[in-house]
Order: sequence, then structure tokens, then C-alpha cells
Amino acid sequence: MKTITTKKNAVTYPKGFQASALAAGIKKGKKKDIALLMSDVPAVSGTVFTINKVQAWPVQISKAHTRHKYHYGIFVNSGNANCSNGKEFLQSAHMILEDIAEEFAIPTESLFIASTGVIGRPYPFEKIEEALADLTNGLSKRGGHDAAEAILTTDTVTKELTTSFALGGRSVRIGAMAKGSGMMHPHMATMLVFITTDCLITKTLLQKALKKAVSKTFNRMSIDNDMSTNDTVFVLANGCAGNKPIKSTGTAFNTFVKALESLCEKMTLELLRDGEGVSKVCILTVKGARTEVQAESAGRTVANSMLFKTALHGADPNWGRILAAIGSDTSIKSDVNKATITVGKARVYDQGVAIVKNIKAAQKAMKKKNVSISIDLHAGGASAIFYTSDLSKEYISINADYTT
Amino acid sequence: MKTITTKKNAVTYPKGFQASALAAGIKKGKKKDIALLMSDVPAVSGTVFTINKVQAWPVQISKAHTRHKYHYGIFVNSGNANCSNGKEFLQSAHMILEDIAEEFAIPTESLFIASTGVIGRPYPFEKIEEALADLTNGLSKRGGHDAAEAILTTDTVTKELTTSFALGGRSVRIGAMAKGSGMMHPHMATMLVFITTDCLITKTLLQKALKKAVSKTFNRMSIDNDMSTNDTVFVLANGCAGNKPIKSTGTAFNTFVKALESLCEKMTLELLRDGEGVSKVCILTVKGARTEVQAESAGRTVANSMLFKTALHGADPNWGRILAAIGSDTSIKSDVNKATITVGKARVYDQGVAIVKNIKAAQKAMKKKNVSISIDLHAGGASAIFYTSDLSKEYISINADYTT
Repeated sequence: MKTITTKKNAVTYPKGFQASALAAGIKKGKKKDIALLMSDVPAVSGTVFTINKVQAWPVQISKAHTRHKYHYGIFVNSGNANCSNGKEFLQSAHMILEDIAEEFAIPTESLFIASTGVIGRPYPFEKIEEALADLTNGLSKRGGHDAAEAILTTDTVTKELTTSFALGGRSVRIGAMAKGSGMMHPHMATMLVFITTDCLITKTLLQKALKKAVSKTFNRMSIDNDMSTNDTVFVLANGCAGNKPIKSTGTAFNTFVKALESLCEKMTLELLRDGEGVSKVCILTVKGARTEVQAESAGRTVANSMLFKTALHGADPNWGRILAAIGSDTSIKSDVNKATITVGKARVYDQGVAIVKNIKAAQKAMKKKNVSISIDLHAGGASAIFYTSDLSKEYISINADYTT
Repeated sequence: MKTITTKKNAVTYPKGFQASALAAGIKKGKKKDIALLMSDVPAVSGTVFTINKVQAWPVQISKAHTRHKYHYGIFVNSGNANCSNGKEFLQSAHMILEDIAEEFAIPTESLFIASTGVIGRPYPFEKIEEALADLTNGLSKRGGHDAAEAILTTDTVTKELTTSFALGGRSVRIGAMAKGSGMMHPHMATMLVFITTDCLITKTLLQKALKKAVSKTFNRMSIDNDMSTNDTVFVLANGCAGNKPIKSTGTAFNTFVKALESLCEKMTLELLRDGEGVSKVCILTVKGARTEVQAESAGRTVANSMLFKTALHGADPNWGRILAAIGSDTSIKSDVNKATITVGKARVYDQGVAIVKNIKAAQKAMKKKNVSISIDLHAGGASAIFYTSDLSKEYISINADYTT
């Protein structure tokens, strides 16, 4: 894995990016709630959107804008998801982008928009409009951290990561900020990830790289089994690093993908750790599967099992729950009774036999904040990693015992 | 719905059935843990088994025995699931049935076996063998309630239901006992349901009737999203009612199916109410779907959503979570934004618009122990009912905070 560093102003760490954020009054208590992330020069973009069929207005606008050749930036607000409300608020969101575009004399389609917060409530268009001039005027290299703060909802910490790598003598940088996963009402805590890079790469390859990275990281994360209406991952690449352009798959492309994937993996773990009611994180490796699809499916089934998640919470190396979860996955075509289950370094179940003497060691491994569990299906050569968390009483508190 | 009555000795309520139960020492504290349910005359059987690919030894034996033309009875033990342990315990389970068969001079294949309890532990064959003579000697019409007690694991109450209906001047009776759903370690609390009837019906039609009833009741129930390795529903029909034999689908068959389905529906609700950490039960109706498969799928997705279950627990009419859950179900082919969501009698979301004035009434409806929620997809004429429960801190306690 590439070295991934937690750094303030991560999204403005790559050359040619500026950011700005302030409190427009959408959130209570003068908390920052709108942010703007801009590239000094036209950038190419990559995007991955929620596949939920209920899609917020900003998702619908940003999706339409992906067709544009180049992009300058992204406007984000927290505190209101602009979802499942009247069509007039689609228009409001549009007008915000139009105003920003006019300010910089760029096409409206070269801007993206993202929102997170309550769903089904009127979008606070006027509040945002009033703050827009200050927001655009405030753009600077030091605005990255403010932006990382402004996108938060139920998150308890900002999530900013950076990495860099050499490409033909040039240093290429990647930066990212993200906000919380784990959905809750009144905040439907969408996962939003914003990645910037000064890499020079074609739009097609940037999209390909992002899809690859997301499929193995953010899409393999489980906090609860729910999917938000606003989830989006954006990447902007503005070419300011001056590297030889990446125009085809090959060594340079692979180096970029690897760096991007490592960054996304670390961000996945940061999102999990700050998930609602999460007290520990588990990296679940499924190997020996017939196909990667089957490995991923088995991982997903275990990762989403409430019994597994509660066992994780209780630090119980309950291989029976893992085995029963895999057994319930009808897509697995091999005999799951022949699996081997290892918790930390302790083998607790081996092809039909419980290994009782290792239970103590497994319990010890499960008491840690980071737990690794490996399942070998002994049916082939494919593998997949899945990222999950425990299920705690605090999750129930956050999601049931709030007052509306 | 047919009148369904809670009655002690439910499984011996139909003519020609006897039961017996006692404590063999598998469970602690002299609790009853083995039971035998027998028909005085050969009966035909119907069965539905777990589709989990990890299947306990008793499931494998009973499955093989379904091929036999007629059946006399079922042996059950609680306290040990006889699952994921050595092959010698398959032999042990077999020998128990052989001994019972010898006692009554009937074929071993005319007996079923079911187990529930811990998985991965040696099956307590000797304890059961020692108690077998007392068990077979104890058979009586008054043994039904003892049997209903003996099959319990984490259940807090026995579940016994009966119904009866007239068929060509004859009274036909159905009785049932069941044990808990919601899986937990050390008890993987399997759902076991035992149904008896004195109806005279062919084996083929009995199986068809059971499959129909189960598909709309037990298979549409959600406590957690996990599936046990031992789940089984048995029905025995011994013909003692002396009705004109049901040999084809038609009025008499439909009457029988309806009675069976009503009984299974009531039992589904009883199982839910006694589920681990359950404080309320929700009947979820999805209507206006293009197909029943889509209606069922939407119901299942909402019923399994942790966010929906926690909202149910907190009595929050959070239609956003319901809408987002349906939206995440990729099998629904209609525009879910056009759905109408009604809690109790209060419409809270109607085709794109939140109905704020009804939220208070919806909250009131959700504070009850029985909550009904209806989702109209406005896309067709198909519907499905789903049965679900809330997710509470107590569920986490039961499943995480036990000591191993």
C-alpha cells in the first residue's frame, strides 16, 4: 500500500486547487455548512453515484453534468439533502450553480453539486444565495480544512487524506476529504467523498480508475445494510503536476490506480471508524473462492449479518454465525462446510471441525479495535476484502432514540 | 381469517395424536429438552426445510426420510443443534430414531428428527438414549403442552395454536406448536414448527398446502437478516377426522389451505412477538406492485432494513427510510418516488410530497405494540404482506453481551 497521510487541507494539497467554506445558517450553532472546491484550470472528472432509485436533486444535476468535457469545481452543502421534496428545489440547486458559473465566467455544466442532511424538507436556497459571494471570494489554498469541516453531519471528526507518487520525474499528488457513512434521521448521513489530483490523465481513464478503486473499497464497506439517496464520490484531475499525460492503461495508469485505491481504502476505514455507534472495525478477507464475485458476495453476506456484527461487538469468535451466514448466500457454489475460519491468527473452524483450543486467542484478537478475519472457502483461487463494523447499542440509540 | 385459538396441548388436539416430553439433562436446571410427537395411525407428511447450505444432521436425516410414503412421528431435542460437528453424530441421531422405531415396530424412515440449540458441540447421545424408554412410555393426549415446553430455547413463552373447520359434515382439526426465531449464540435459535391435523388428504396435496402457507407466512418474517441451519416446518395429517379424502385441488383443498395459512399467520406473529429483543411487531403491506415477486421483494427490503427497524423501535414515522429502502431494491421496476406510504391510517408520503400534518397521527400509531404500515407503489395490481419487528438495544444485549 502507498503511504497515505492524514493532512489538513488535503483537497487543496494537489497543485491548482482552492477551497472555501462558511456557515450559511442551514445548520444550527454557526457551524460551517457550505463549501466550494475549485480547480484553477479546467479539470477532467470521474464520478460514482448511489444506485438507489430515489435520487436527490443534486445527484440528478451532477449526473447530467458528467457529460460535460471538463469541470472546474463542486459546490456542497450539509444540513439539507435536497431529496424527496418539490421540483422547485431542483431549480434552486441549478440556480446556485448558475450563479457560481457566472462569477467565474465558466459553463454551469462544468460544476457539480452535492448535498447531505435532512430529506423531505424545503431546500434553504435563500440562505445559500446570500452567502455565495463570500464563499467564492474566500477561495484559497488554506480553505481545504474548512471545506472538510463544512461537509460533516453526524461525523465526529474530519476525514482528510493525501498521498503522492513519482511519475516520470514529476511528483503527482492526490488529496481527499469525506463525510460520514451510517445513515440516520433527521440526517440521512450520506457518504460523500471528494478527491482532487494534479495528475494529467484523460477523462475516460480517470473514470475507469475511480470505478476500479471504489468497487474494491467504498463499495465493500458495511455499517448498516442501508443505502443513501445522496451517496457520491467525485474526483477532479487538473493536470497541474505536468506529468506525461496518462492516455492508455499501462504502467503509469496502474501506478495512479494503485495510489488512488490505497487512498480510498484508508478513507473507507476512516469512514467506518467514525460510523454511527461503531466501536470496532473488521477487515474480512474471503479467499479460496471460485470467482471474485463469489468471494465478494460471501464477504458482503457476513459483513451485513446482524448476528456477525453483534458477535464482533461482543468479541465472540462465533464461527457458527459466520458459517451460517455464508451458507445462506445462495450465490456460493462450493460446499461451505469445507471452509476454514481464522480470527486474527487463530484458526477456529477447519473444514467441519471446531478448533476449541484456539478460541481464547481468537477472543483476544476480537477485543482489539481492528479485527481481521479470514475465510478460506478452499474452492478456487479468487479472493476479496470486505470492510465492516460492529453493531452496538449506541447505533440503536442514534437511530431510534432521537427526538424528531 | 379462520378463528385461531391459543390452547394447551395444541399438537394433540387433532384426533389420533399423542405427545410426551421430559428432561434428559441436555439443558441445565432440569428443563424439559426432549419430546416425541406420534400419530396413532400412519400419517402423510409435509415439510419445509432451511435453504441454508450449512445443514444440521437432523435436517439431513429428515430430508432423506421425506421420501417415505407415510410417517408416524417426530423426535425433537433442544439444547444442542447437532450441527457442524463430527459425522459420528449423524450416526447417533440415526440410532435414536432406530430405537424409537424398534419400540413401536415401525420403519425408521417413518420418523423425523429435529434439533435446536448450540452448534458445533458433541451431540449428547447417551443422555437421550437413557431417557428414551421413559419418553415413549409417557405418550398421551395430555403431553402436547409438555412437548411445546421442551422445544423452547431462548423463547420466553410456549407457542400453541389450534383451529378447526367443517368439511362435509365432519370437523377437521389443526394444531401447532413452535419455537423461537431470532438466532442467538450459544443457542442458534432455530425456528421449528410442528403442525398436526386429523384431515384426510393425500401426501402430495398436504405438501402443496404447506408450501403455500409457509411462503406467505414464515417465509415473510424478519427478525434479523440471518438464516438458521436447522429451520424446519413439519406437518402430519393422519386422516382420523374421517372426512371425504382431499384428493384434488378444489373447494375442500382451498378450505384446508385457508385454515392452515391462517394458523401459520398467527404463529408467525407469535414468533415475532417473542423474538429476541422485540418490543413491537409490524405488518407491512406492499400493494400496487407490478408483480407479487416485486411486492414481496420490496416488503423484504424494508422489513430487513436496520434503519427501518430502529425507526420502528423509536416510533418514528420516517418515510424517508422506507422510501430509501425500496429505492435500494434493484428488482423493483417502477418509479418508487411515486409511492404512497401510510402508517396506521395516516398518509405520510404521497407521490413525491411529505404530508407533514399527518406525522403526529403516524407517531401515535407507531407507539403501539402492533404497527401496520402500507406502501402503495401505484404501478400495478399485485400485493404482498410482510411481517417484521423492531431492532432494540435488548437485541444487541442478547446477541453481543452474553458470556461464552
